[in-house]
Amino acid sequence: MVKLKGFQKLTLVDEALQTWFTALQVGKPKVVTVPLGEALGRILAEDFVANESLPRFDKSAMDGYAVKAADLAGASQSKPVVLKLTQADQVEAKQAKQIWTGHPIPKGADAVVMLENTQKHGDDLEVWGQLAPWTNISKVGEDIKQGDLLVKAGTRLNPYSMGLAAALGHTTLKVAAKPKITIIATGNEITEVGTQRASNQIYDSNKTMVAAMCHELGAETTDLGIAKDDVDEIAKKIKDALKTHDAVITTGGTSVGGFDLVPDAVNKLGKPGVIVHGVALRPAMPTAVATLEGKPVLILSGNPVAAVIGFEVFGRPLVCMMLGMPKTEPRPIVTAKLAHRVTSALGRKTYVRVRVVNKNGELVAEPVSAKGSGSISTMTMSNGYLIVTENREGILEGETVTIQMFGTVEEA
Amino acid sequence: MVKLKGFQKLTLVDEALQTWFTALQVGKPKVVTVPLGEALGRILAEDFVANESLPRFDKSAMDGYAVKAADLAGASQSKPVVLKLTQADQVEAKQAKQIWTGHPIPKGADAVVMLENTQKHGDDLEVWGQLAPWTNISKVGEDIKQGDLLVKAGTRLNPYSMGLAAALGHTTLKVAAKPKITIIATGNEITEVGTQRASNQIYDSNKTMVAAMCHELGAETTDLGIAKDDVDEIAKKIKDALKTHDAVITTGGTSVGGFDLVPDAVNKLGKPGVIVHGVALRPAMPTAVATLEGKPVLILSGNPVAAVIGFEVFGRPLVCMMLGMPKTEPRPIVTAKLAHRVTSALGRKTYVRVRVVNKNGELVAEPVSAKGSGSISTMTMSNGYLIVTENREGILEGETVTIQMFGTVEEA
Repeated sequence: MVKLKGFQKLTLVDEALQTWFTALQVGKPKVVTVPLGEALGRILAEDFVANESLPRFDKSAMDGYAVKAADLAGASQSKPVVLKLTQADQVEAKQAKQIWTGHPIPKGADAVVMLENTQKHGDDLEVWGQLAPWTNISKVGEDIKQGDLLVKAGTRLNPYSMGLAAALGHTTLKVAAKPKITIIATGNEITEVGTQRASNQIYDSNKTMVAAMCHELGAETTDLGIAKDDVDEIAKKIKDALKTHDAVITTGGTSVGGFDLVPDAVNKLGKPGVIVHGVALRPAMPTAVATLEGKPVLILSGNPVAAVIGFEVFGRPLVCMMLGMPKTEPRPIVTAKLAHRVTSALGRKTYVRVRVVNKNGELVAEPVSAKGSGSISTMTMSNGYLIVTENREGILEGETVTIQMFGTVEEA
Repeated sequence: MVKLKGFQKLTLVDEALQTWFTALQVGKPKVVTVPLGEALGRILAEDFVANESLPRFDKSAMDGYAVKAADLAGASQSKPVVLKLTQADQVEAKQAKQIWTGHPIPKGADAVVMLENTQKHGDDLEVWGQLAPWTNISKVGEDIKQGDLLVKAGTRLNPYSMGLAAALGHTTLKVAAKPKITIIATGNEITEVGTQRASNQIYDSNKTMVAAMCHELGAETTDLGIAKDDVDEIAKKIKDALKTHDAVITTGGTSVGGFDLVPDAVNKLGKPGVIVHGVALRPAMPTAVATLEGKPVLILSGNPVAAVIGFEVFGRPLVCMMLGMPKTEPRPIVTAKLAHRVTSALGRKTYVRVRVVNKNGELVAEPVSAKGSGSISTMTMSNGYLIVTENREGILEGETVTIQMFGTVEEA
């Protein structure tokens, strides 16, 4: 057997997450009040409880006529009952008043007959059927009762919960403050997009991706630029970031080999520092997780795909927790037939990028392979992850698999 | 048979959409240039074609040592080859130079031996295996070739396509301008959230929801307030809106009965005006679609759930089209077992709100029923739609159904 250098031991993903989160003890997020119209996608910070009942008055559930149900006894299509139309506020015996869906039931009325079951003749209204009392009436509190728990704290607000808040008279909502995350890239070989690059340099793409992945979840980011491959420079940037931010995410400067500049820089800055370095995860094995001043530091690989998957596995649960969500927000899932065999190493959790395609109604997951797994194009060609668990050495062609989707299913 | 008043004829959903879209002839969206960091979720306006190849130089795919493959002929663990470590720019015969993933291959080298297959002794490097030329090297253009189509116009930008743009040196991206949509609520019975309401009035929730649904897709909205139930007032607001906006969406003032103030107002303003009024859709039958000055006017019900579903069916495809997307963005889909029978009317497309729950690994769709289907709480209690097609009269308990998700699956 070839000796595994670099990491003496790889930590299992679940164990790494648990150890890190236990060390972190992230508290409840700060609460901010935002105008209702700006609450979309924010995370509700407090249980939303109904401050009044809905409807708050008995209202019509139909377009039609408010009547006294007793007046319609025995009515049928062959033997209609005739009522007098009224414009008054109150409906008296043998009267009917036109009413629209959602409008309050006038006094004296106790049922609404649907427009379709009537015929108007001047001031007379023929009604073709009888009704039980309270037919087609939404009674006070029928939809929502004062005190009902409507939306739980930790829920991402959608248009409908915002609508419910409006219906109950709220012009603002209390949501979790956006976690402030600093992103630092490291490496002599990378340079900022839009700047001059040396012949052996490449543009940094990691900060752009990590920032966007944070934004998707609802965090705010600050770009602290690129640190050279120098422990002191990296340490200074991380120290500065911790003063004003809730978390730090770095890319590069961590590897299977000896190039552990970021873990070294973190460990120089204090205890406990690096908690796990080297994860049984493919790609993204060199990922490290750390704590400084009680704040999380996530050390991602410099390889773009490994950085993306390191964020998926460690950054996503972290940001969800910082937002006060009860668990990591799940990605949409589909089941599909695997188009080709994939191989993976026993004992490592493997994220296979796949393209899920709808072929005549059957979903097929095509593994997106590339010689250099580091190419971001394998991410843009994919729409989901097939996660191969540690106890498997691969998955056979044709097997039914569960895919975590980050894009929409393609049509073949 | 009871005579159906109000609508002489209900138009099928697909026919209504097609007739409307044919009348509209929405053009390509305006193109705006946004900084890369602000492109998340925007719709790419032009095909994104690789302006250079990636990698742009031969680079290492591994942490290890750059070598000449020929020097390793015959090497094995029992019979290692020993090379001299060099710091020079060029690798000569029998030399090795340390290299990290992603870094350029030095001149003279044509393979990279993995760190794990070596042992360093001072300036000497033992190598335990032989390699074919170009092993562990990503060659120029291996990931992406100049001229490759990377992301198609009409695609919603995700973190990975943004990363690819960064890697190729783009500081900006060309995206579709946000369609400008005006929202007008109508009705004497509604009042603005945050204002004083009369005893028979309710707060408007429709504008909040419609705006948020537009924002989710990537449109910009203007709130033109509430128009009283008055054809001239409604017409004036719509006319004003059309001067500065790309589309108008109204709520209320359209019904099965005779309360067709908004369609009347639209028809007063010009031709063709209302194109379809009354759709074979439950809820949301009173939805109307119109065209004025070539711009779309979507007339939604005042019933909040009918407004939401009218938007889902007509607004969502409209906004996607205005953004230049090739088709309506699909919602994530799951298949689930229907927990209870649902009924629907033959000839009408029915949107049943359901709550999809994971019960010990089995997805179950529970119909969310409520006496008044108009309650927004039926939306906040649900996470998806079961769409019953026109040719069915309901779906039996236990049947496997496809659900369009607007929330995440709940754990039981």
